[in-house]
Amino acid sequence: MHDRRMLEELPRQEALRLLASVPMGRVVFTQRALPAIRPVNHILDGGEVVIRTNLSSSVATTVGHQPEAVVAYEADDIDTDSRTGWSVVITGVARLVRDPLDRARYESLLRPWVENRGDCVLRIRPDIATGFRVTPYQGN
Amino acid sequence: MHDRRMLEELPRQEALRLLASVPMGRVVFTQRALPAIRPVNHILDGGEVVIRTNLSSSVATTVGHQPEAVVAYEADDIDTDSRTGWSVVITGVARLVRDPLDRARYESLLRPWVENRGDCVLRIRPDIATGFRVTPYQGN
Repeated sequence: MHDRRMLEELPRQEALRLLASVPMGRVVFTQRALPAIRPVNHILDGGEVVIRTNLSSSVATTVGHQPEAVVAYEADDIDTDSRTGWSVVITGVARLVRDPLDRARYESLLRPWVENRGDCVLRIRPDIATGFRVTPYQGN
Repeated sequence: MHDRRMLEELPRQEALRLLASVPMGRVVFTQRALPAIRPVNHILDGGEVVIRTNLSSSVATTVGHQPEAVVAYEADDIDTDSRTGWSVVITGVARLVRDPLDRARYESLLRPWVENRGDCVLRIRPDIATGFRVTPYQGN
């Protein structure tokens, strides 16, 4: 039997719902004109994606030194055996969270992978939210 | 007990070995000056990362219309419960595989997620290969 799968594009709300259902993703940014990527934990808050990352890391430096930095953020849940699952990408403006109370609240919700005093918190506004889902073909 | 983890940087060879041990990753590229990302399957061949992607997809268009396009490619295996695992990123020049024999061989090795006649094959040269591994802290 030839195994067939269907690819379905996801509407914005479904893409954001799936993103909120998993704890980690990958932030994608431009660093010295080169594409760069780093896996991080995330939460959704007020319709925005909030991540915690090392201040010395490139994305924080990139965002911290520009009035507006556009990043992409990807999360997925793909079964590599059945080759089914979903992937969501949001693209939008990222900003450093500077308010101490907001920062403390996000830091309590986002556990870093390794304890680090130099952490900072970024909010990413999902100006674009796209995604796809691959499912087994149900037709005949 | 305070759970502690250790972050270890990976040498190039170990980063490439881990990348070769998993079937999928995410290709990261710049599209109209914006960061973009797409999950794909990969193999390592002759020290280069080979991916198959839809010709109409942005990365193929980006690579196909430039003499040299630099992309990043990320793969990871992270346990979100224990927050341990690894992530590898390679960065380098991507080129369309135009030789019909090479292309046919790669297409037989790289199964696409959805059957598509418009597939093309890209080779990415790992000019930079970095990564990290997070493990439980073994000290006292």
